[in-house]
Amino acid sequence: MVKVTFLKIGYIGATNMIDALLDERASRRGLSVRVISSGCKMDEEEAVDAARLAASVPSDLYVVVSPNAGLPGPTAARGILKETGKPIIVVSDEPTRKIRKDLAEEGVGYIVIYADPMIGARRDFLDPVEMVLFNSDVLRVLAVTGVIRLIHSEIDRVIAQLEKGEEVQLPQVIANRETALEHSGLENPYAYGKAMASFEAARRVANLSTEGTYRVKERERYMPILAAAHELMRQAALMADEAREMEKANDSVARVVHFRSGALRRKTKLLGKFEQ
Amino acid sequence: MVKVTFLKIGYIGATNMIDALLDERASRRGLSVRVISSGCKMDEEEAVDAARLAASVPSDLYVVVSPNAGLPGPTAARGILKETGKPIIVVSDEPTRKIRKDLAEEGVGYIVIYADPMIGARRDFLDPVEMVLFNSDVLRVLAVTGVIRLIHSEIDRVIAQLEKGEEVQLPQVIANRETALEHSGLENPYAYGKAMASFEAARRVANLSTEGTYRVKERERYMPILAAAHELMRQAALMADEAREMEKANDSVARVVHFRSGALRRKTKLLGKFEQ
Amino acid sequence: MVKVTFLKIGYIGATNMIDALLDERASRRGLSVRVISSGCKMDEEEAVDAARLAASVPSDLYVVVSPNAGLPGPTAARGILKETGKPIIVVSDEPTRKIRKDLAEEGVGYIVIYADPMIGARRDFLDPVEMVLFNSDVLRVLAVTGVIRLIHSEIDRVIAQLEKGEEVQLPQVIANRETALEHSGLENPYAYGKAMASFEAARRVANLSTEGTYRVKERERYMPILAAAHELMRQAALMADEAREMEKANDSVARVVHFRSGALRRKTKLLGKFEQ
Amino acid sequence: MVKVTFLKIGYIGATNMIDALLDERASRRGLSVRVISSGCKMDEEEAVDAARLAASVPSDLYVVVSPNAGLPGPTAARGILKETGKPIIVVSDEPTRKIRKDLAEEGVGYIVIYADPMIGARRDFLDPVEMVLFNSDVLRVLAVTGVIRLIHSEIDRVIAQLEKGEEVQLPQVIANRETALEHSGLENPYAYGKAMASFEAARRVANLSTEGTYRVKERERYMPILAAAHELMRQAALMADEAREMEKANDSVARVVHFRSGALRRKTKLLGKFEQ
Amino acid sequence: MVKVTFLKIGYIGATNMIDALLDERASRRGLSVRVISSGCKMDEEEAVDAARLAASVPSDLYVVVSPNAGLPGPTAARGILKETGKPIIVVSDEPTRKIRKDLAEEGVGYIVIYADPMIGARRDFLDPVEMVLFNSDVLRVLAVTGVIRLIHSEIDRVIAQLEKGEEVQLPQVIANRETALEHSGLENPYAYGKAMASFEAARRVANLSTEGTYRVKERERYMPILAAAHELMRQAALMADEAREMEKANDSVARVVHFRSGALRRKTKLLGKFEQ
Amino acid sequence: MVKVTFLKIGYIGATNMIDALLDERASRRGLSVRVISSGCKMDEEEAVDAARLAASVPSDLYVVVSPNAGLPGPTAARGILKETGKPIIVVSDEPTRKIRKDLAEEGVGYIVIYADPMIGARRDFLDPVEMVLFNSDVLRVLAVTGVIRLIHSEIDRVIAQLEKGEEVQLPQVIANRETALEHSGLENPYAYGKAMASFEAARRVANLSTEGTYRVKERERYMPILAAAHELMRQAALMADEAREMEKANDSVARVVHFRSGALRRKTKLLGKFEQ
Repeated sequence: MVKVTFLKIGYIGATNMIDALLDERASRRGLSVRVISSGCKMDEEEAVDAARLAASVPSDLYVVVSPNAGLPGPTAARGILKETGKPIIVVSDEPTRKIRKDLAEEGVGYIVIYADPMIGARRDFLDPVEMVLFNSDVLRVLAVTGVIRLIHSEIDRVIAQLEKGEEVQLPQVIANRETALEHSGLENPYAYGKAMASFEAARRVANLSTEGTYRVKERERYMPILAAAHELMRQAALMADEAREMEKANDSVARVVHFRSGALRRKTKLLGKFEQ
Repeated sequence: MVKVTFLKIGYIGATNMIDALLDERASRRGLSVRVISSGCKMDEEEAVDAARLAASVPSDLYVVVSPNAGLPGPTAARGILKETGKPIIVVSDEPTRKIRKDLAEEGVGYIVIYADPMIGARRDFLDPVEMVLFNSDVLRVLAVTGVIRLIHSEIDRVIAQLEKGEEVQLPQVIANRETALEHSGLENPYAYGKAMASFEAARRVANLSTEGTYRVKERERYMPILAAAHELMRQAALMADEAREMEKANDSVARVVHFRSGALRRKTKLLGKFEQ
Repeated sequence: MVKVTFLKIGYIGATNMIDALLDERASRRGLSVRVISSGCKMDEEEAVDAARLAASVPSDLYVVVSPNAGLPGPTAARGILKETGKPIIVVSDEPTRKIRKDLAEEGVGYIVIYADPMIGARRDFLDPVEMVLFNSDVLRVLAVTGVIRLIHSEIDRVIAQLEKGEEVQLPQVIANRETALEHSGLENPYAYGKAMASFEAARRVANLSTEGTYRVKERERYMPILAAAHELMRQAALMADEAREMEKANDSVARVVHFRSGALRRKTKLLGKFEQ
Repeated sequence: MVKVTFLKIGYIGATNMIDALLDERASRRGLSVRVISSGCKMDEEEAVDAARLAASVPSDLYVVVSPNAGLPGPTAARGILKETGKPIIVVSDEPTRKIRKDLAEEGVGYIVIYADPMIGARRDFLDPVEMVLFNSDVLRVLAVTGVIRLIHSEIDRVIAQLEKGEEVQLPQVIANRETALEHSGLENPYAYGKAMASFEAARRVANLSTEGTYRVKERERYMPILAAAHELMRQAALMADEAREMEKANDSVARVVHFRSGALRRKTKLLGKFEQ
Repeated sequence: MVKVTFLKIGYIGATNMIDALLDERASRRGLSVRVISSGCKMDEEEAVDAARLAASVPSDLYVVVSPNAGLPGPTAARGILKETGKPIIVVSDEPTRKIRKDLAEEGVGYIVIYADPMIGARRDFLDPVEMVLFNSDVLRVLAVTGVIRLIHSEIDRVIAQLEKGEEVQLPQVIANRETALEHSGLENPYAYGKAMASFEAARRVANLSTEGTYRVKERERYMPILAAAHELMRQAALMADEAREMEKANDSVARVVHFRSGALRRKTKLLGKFEQ
Repeated sequence: MVKVTFLKIGYIGATNMIDALLDERASRRGLSVRVISSGCKMDEEEAVDAARLAASVPSDLYVVVSPNAGLPGPTAARGILKETGKPIIVVSDEPTRKIRKDLAEEGVGYIVIYADPMIGARRDFLDPVEMVLFNSDVLRVLAVTGVIRLIHSEIDRVIAQLEKGEEVQLPQVIANRETALEHSGLENPYAYGKAMASFEAARRVANLSTEGTYRVKERERYMPILAAAHELMRQAALMADEAREMEKANDSVARVVHFRSGALRRKTKLLGKFEQ
């Protein structure tokens, strides 16, 4: 039985459901998952407190999910988990690329996602309803562009190593346009192009929401920028949907599913069988 | 400082982000949130273990989120939390309505959501990518039809009571078509109709996925039923989107935001001010 | 020459064009069709009067189309036609399933359609324009989900028996999700799923319009319910359209056409030939 | 009690539901409706036979609906009805404009509809399913562009004259782009433009289907023309839908409804009241 | 080196980019292009002046692009170019068909385009923004329906003849529905039908904008007609887009590209190679 | 009479129709326009030759439109025009911002457009049909996001100064997100957000097409990048369309039109009057 504990500090799109990706049928015999989270807060105090709780949970692997893993909160949390001596994988968004060498040196694995943009973090857009809609759009982009597949494949790989008692090779992955799309399973080249466009649009959202949240101070200027960020996010999701519908039309949607043993098996034709 | 601990056992749509709804700006001074989850697994053993961890976290309020709160896992988890003597709110999906009297008698509050359908839980549809897309659709429906607003309003109300030291009145809410939509803030009657149609479509999804997962045994019959469930879910999300776009066209999107004090304030015109 | 007389009492979606389905090119040599209708009215007096007129038309087969065939009007009409001794087929909507055993015992054939919902029968929605739009949507769903094919195939079968002088086997068909879809000719499994979703949405419309029309009395409550019913009907039609467009993209739209002899022949590729 | 008998010979789009437009709630006290139809066939023999049946029904007004009222079948049918001495209104499609002077001289009223195109009447497109879809599209265009309103308003006007014993003034109406749109009730000028575009597209469909059916003989040439006709018809319906959705966004959809007395009353805001 | 000079007098849709079609990569070794234009004005004085300038440019071929080539301005311009003794090809819109015999007798080649409608030339619609949008729509229709391919193929053919010193055979082409679509490269028959419908809708736009601009004098009548013209043009473009998306879904988009030598080579699969 | 000569060297989106923006009705009394272009080619030799021709045309103002005005061809062309001593305005795309100080020092005005991306300039995407579609999309974005209005307003301003004999103040304008959108006339804040999102997506297209054309060498890598660029461009155009449709729904589309005198007058309600 491999025990995986997710520590979630603050929110990115991939925070949602990341623990569910490994055992979507709740049927994996050799896996147990725990999640500890401090909710939206990610200051050092909250992060450390949550990390202590996580460190107290017997685990074979820690996955720490947070925005910008270089911020004080996530950094401190990592410090606490490292004391357990267990392998750690950081899953975070684009700003984390700045510390990826540090992470490598620390012996911490990472998956840095380039299409998981920050919400427009000004009060007018932090309505819970708007926030859920924004995340719904982000999830769609992550799912269709291959990011979701990439994340669970990497964690699955490590779990398999743990299960077999092999040496663990932690991921050092930048989930950029190319590495993500390679995992998308999209076969039609135009669907592939649409998904890549969706990915790129989501990255632009990150530029816009960062600009509107931190760099522009005048309300009359940042409001349209953030409105644009959220509209572009919606459109990125619609492009992702368009890509998937194109694959549906060809009955070529790739599906990769965990079997009870934890093995992944693949199929494409909806009514067809899983590959051996 | 009010401490709220979410215990998540298994997954429904509202499992995602429910803890984020209370403090979307991570700026509320009087609130601290923790989340403990057992991931997808919700059998008694896993649930009890996670519940014990949650019970060990100092909390003023527990919110337990799970599918069908009447199942052994969630029931056992509730039992453990009750020992803390702290107020408990159950957030769950439609099958939970069967035990709502029991919950009331136990002194446990509840929010039972009628448009949060189960995924088509057959292997072919339990691909992590498909699962994320399904949840993306569910989140959109929950957001636009008022469910998200209803959930956080009820929990916010209890937090305010805790904060003021008032007697806590736990919610006994069925988030059905009418109570949800009342919280949607939709002003245009056709947008309201579209959102209600979206809600109803999501309920039908629940019928279909339950049927295809549990009642129909022949693969050649359950596959189209589950495909239909997921297609209908996608369409429900598109209807929700259509409703919101209609409100955008009228610049009448309702926004309700937490201020630092935890107070909720409302606005509609995007470039307008919050109501006092 | 087989003579078929349709008696239409009140309106369901399938009332429209049902007589046209048998001889769309007006070129069938061995068939003559008459239609008698009482328009929207279906009380006993009107129904009986129309039935008498129909009974006076020399016919080899009667097809009675009405809402709920168990209501007094359609029942009385049937009584009159039975006196002619000619075979009768009832085509009606879902409430008719309650009397299907009675129909079988009476020796009356039936086709009971599960995706032919009642309009929101409150004054505000009974504008002729709204009514035509609602029926336009219903027709689209009936066409794409296989109901139209099912109806004419069954009546064609009986006509062929009459023509050959064989013993007539009247249909005892519930056009539910599965029997309908089997006749849809949809090849792509996602298109099939969309069509089934469309069918299910249309059934939900029936629930909503019945509820809003008969069970809810307060105007402020039934108005949104009926608005939702009509919006969901529109969406069901759009889903049906999506399914057909997917088949078009694959050039796999099934077409089944009457030849002059009345024989049905089939093709799929648009520019291809009919199968022998 | 005014008795109106509809004689339907062959099919145009307006054949569907025209009798339902007058009494959509089946609640009009002073009106009784009968319909007699020969189905798709409209040759002289079938038309005369159906007309004799209609002539035998006691009626205060006859409405004859058919394609091209100048063809032998409809002409002969009219001849028979004229013998009853009752007023007659012809409802037909654009080719009928060629005989409108004759109709006026005969004392027959007429409503000639310019956006009710013939289906592509080649075998490949006369599949019952395709036919129903084509008619679904036509109905949508007729409804949104004002044709439906125009038709029932004119017949209602005559019924009112009959009811009051006034002299009957039969309609002499060409339902062209302008007279139709005036009845559409569309308030937004862009919605009005979209609806007019829809009307014009439907007229172009008539050109295409006539050309593909009668003038072009080579299969490899008429097939694309008819495919284009049906695609354009689908698009005309989508434009009509777009126009109506725009009015919904403004909550300015016009509704005109028959009250029990037969009086027509109007409203626009969905939740508002009927005008006095 | 073949030198081609385009003389543009006034604007049709094909005025845009016609010179770019021949050398889209700016890499053709044997071709040099010049363009002279009088902008929107096309009266005789402006046309003659621009033509004189064009005549002064050493050229092997002249292509004259204008609305209605029979108007005085374009006619006079042609007169001046004829004095150079160089071959001339007229590219113009549908009204030019009236003079095509004259052109043939003059020895002038022509490509007359039937789906390049005039804008609604009333002041309210001659806003530069509206104008650009209208032309954007026209370009889309010209591109997808084969007109663009037809134009450059014909001019390329003449250039090749000039290059080889062969006798030049000037085009005498009516780019109507059939000749255009033959060049569209669309493989799916429904996409072909959609594109033809788009072409036909664009032709109807021409009827509407001509009517609204020249024949109807009352503002309250011509405004909706022109609004309809522009809405129909937008829809024609959307239909064209739908056709191309269908081909993308099948990865069957035809591409024909100039190589450096000026030779045209073709491919369909996006990631495939050019045919030899 | 002010004489404006456009020199076009190579192609950007704004190359199309820029000369038409000033006199869309061909009715301005005080303006004469000429255009000289070298087609797609923009090397020094072609550019110089075209510039000499332009310099020979009597002109009061030159507008030079080209990609990247810092390249040798456009630079040399500017050198030749400067010898005429007439004012020059450069209109170009984003790379030109690098030389804007130089332009200012040279006394040359400029309008540098940030949402006018290069096409994916690899052979597979340089099919004339693809190129026209790409430009159609670019034009839509330029029109809706305010770029078109900004361009003609600035040139109009200079023309007015020339007409009145005032000192000419050449534009020094960066048409970025904010300056462009200010000219868009969009009133609904969500439409404004959609248009800004469209603008930003178009900028991202420029990044992608530059990367795919120049920086990535491997065919299997640049093909998807360029496919993504073109798909994103298509989506940017759809977003622009969505923004405009939203304004149409509110009947608030801004229109600004040249009167005969050259004066610009504005209106919003479609059926309303121009402001004085």
